[in-house]
Amino acid sequence: MKARVHVMLKTGVLDPQGEAVRHALTAMGFDKVEGVRQGKVIDLDLAEGATQADVAEMCEKLLANTVIERYEIEMV
Amino acid sequence: MKARVHVMLKTGVLDPQGEAVRHALTAMGFDKVEGVRQGKVIDLDLAEGATQADVAEMCEKLLANTVIERYEIEMV
Repeated sequence: MKARVHVMLKTGVLDPQGEAVRHALTAMGFDKVEGVRQGKVIDLDLAEGATQADVAEMCEKLLANTVIERYEIEMV
Repeated sequence: MKARVHVMLKTGVLDPQGEAVRHALTAMGFDKVEGVRQGKVIDLDLAEGATQADVAEMCEKLLANTVIERYEIEMV
């Protein structure tokens, strides 16, 4: 059983890492890039019986800083 | 137009960041976690006319280190 978690900065929170990537891409001639946001993806291998609620608890307690980050969980 | 790029370490490449997350989750009592891999997600806002091939070129040249990382592109 697997879960994929995306952790992204909330809209409105400055993303200097994404901004650096955007700047680098533009400098390399990729002129169609209008914006970049960078986040984390965490792939979890879970034992049988783990639920999406367990993963949400992991996000709240460890994986995301919910003051500035939001998370999305996909069970796969 | 938007693209989402996932950059993950290739299978077999040691992932100390993922391993640290797994260790922390286990120490917090989440005993159903069997493995963790951590990667990057990059959301791109693109001007009209940008193609998946453009994004693949960005990955090859900047976003991923293809010696140790693989990437997946989703156009959304």
